[in-house]
Amino acid sequence: MTHSELFERIVRKRSFLCVGLDTEIEKIPAFLRDENNPIFEFNKRIIDATHEFTVAYKPNVAFYESEGMAGWTALEKTVNYIAENHPDIFIIADAKRGDIGNTSKMYAKAFFENMPFDAVTVAPYMGEDSVTPFLSYKNKWAVLLALTSNKGADDFQYHDESGIKLFEKVLTVSQKWGDINNLMYVVGATRTDTLKDIRKLAPDHFLLVPGVGAQGGSLEEVAKYGMNSKCGLLVNSSRGIIFAGSGTDFDVIAGQKAKEIQLEMEKYLSERKLI
Amino acid sequence: MTHSELFERIVRKRSFLCVGLDTEIEKIPAFLRDENNPIFEFNKRIIDATHEFTVAYKPNVAFYESEGMAGWTALEKTVNYIAENHPDIFIIADAKRGDIGNTSKMYAKAFFENMPFDAVTVAPYMGEDSVTPFLSYKNKWAVLLALTSNKGADDFQYHDESGIKLFEKVLTVSQKWGDINNLMYVVGATRTDTLKDIRKLAPDHFLLVPGVGAQGGSLEEVAKYGMNSKCGLLVNSSRGIIFAGSGTDFDVIAGQKAKEIQLEMEKYLSERKLI
Repeated sequence: MTHSELFERIVRKRSFLCVGLDTEIEKIPAFLRDENNPIFEFNKRIIDATHEFTVAYKPNVAFYESEGMAGWTALEKTVNYIAENHPDIFIIADAKRGDIGNTSKMYAKAFFENMPFDAVTVAPYMGEDSVTPFLSYKNKWAVLLALTSNKGADDFQYHDESGIKLFEKVLTVSQKWGDINNLMYVVGATRTDTLKDIRKLAPDHFLLVPGVGAQGGSLEEVAKYGMNSKCGLLVNSSRGIIFAGSGTDFDVIAGQKAKEIQLEMEKYLSERKLI
Repeated sequence: MTHSELFERIVRKRSFLCVGLDTEIEKIPAFLRDENNPIFEFNKRIIDATHEFTVAYKPNVAFYESEGMAGWTALEKTVNYIAENHPDIFIIADAKRGDIGNTSKMYAKAFFENMPFDAVTVAPYMGEDSVTPFLSYKNKWAVLLALTSNKGADDFQYHDESGIKLFEKVLTVSQKWGDINNLMYVVGATRTDTLKDIRKLAPDHFLLVPGVGAQGGSLEEVAKYGMNSKCGLLVNSSRGIIFAGSGTDFDVIAGQKAKEIQLEMEKYLSERKLI
């Protein structure tokens, strides 16, 4: 998917919502646990109930990896289900991978060749050759960590050389490796105070923004400081949607939550005259 | 495994060799490809031929992940084979994981609960809460990236705030999160010029040193600048051992290569009077 195709879908759906599929087996409603693959069954129902309000899904790979073979099967089935039934939806593997070149190449193969993901989140610590293998696939994306939403972001991401913080250096240096069609950045919604400055460094790139909802970030502020002329935002909500309900109607409740967020997003897109 | 148990094994085996199981399916000798699980069959023969000279194995998870279910099966079988047949050998998942706390916890579960790994390599970019879940398991280790062996290491790892480079900050700050019994660091063998300085910052921790062999690092220099009074080194070689031969005797040749390195290591351990 290209940058302009992604924007076109945002306009059509009046939404820049990414639903995070952080599907924790212990939190799946009890009535689904006897299914053959409870994780996939849960995801399928979440997808059926939320796809109308959503431009992207983001399975968090750790939650699948921690369940061994059953987890990997659920991940594969989930991604294939989205790709087959909703080919217009952008699918991000939240995997935080990154290693020396010949190894990153293997991770890119895992997510882009073996599974129909559109994007993978990548950790920047190891630099250029750890990222470029993800950028070499046509219409696929690397989503590079810049400023993350967690407390630990303070430990190293603000390390400051001559007024340039590490996350700022990541944002500027990495732009030489790719372009707005294959590279986006993770910027936590809990860091809205710096979103305005980040937009100066990366005015045209999409930002993937986690941390709205359970982690406490404000959608209004993210839209205010982060939106550009092609929206340029994918805002993720995971637990706030998928575990909003816990009964047999969990999917209906997830759909309602997704719709609430979509309506708020529609308002911000409309105020910016993007729809 | 504790720090002193690891040292005891180094002394007993007169070796600080870690064999990297970067098992690329295309490089496996042709005669093994008809086996039910060629990756596992290859690893099993490599392990049988090298375990005598080795204190650690390090499967590179990307190479397994890129083969889908067959790859994950091979990884599980490999780790279980080592744990069952050579319980004195330290097993490192070279996975470069790291995410917000609740997600890193899932990765730790994947490698420490579902599989009998002793250690996982972890990327430090996301800070404390991305690392501590790996440190909370008794006798298990996080191997944190400090200064890596690849070219891209230059992009961000030397980012310098008031004379303190990013990799130096990683080395000092992270020491508050764990101790010498659950935390070691990756320092590339291609960076021996800085090994002496790194030893000042982390005098007692084990260092996992990749980059000897195919990547061009020198074992002699690593030993000279990196060894401490409890050895403090695990030096990895992957392609230089496991793909040294390509015929039906590939395992014999791998064993010879491992023995050569072990004999060189024995010399350095002896010179330091550690054996």
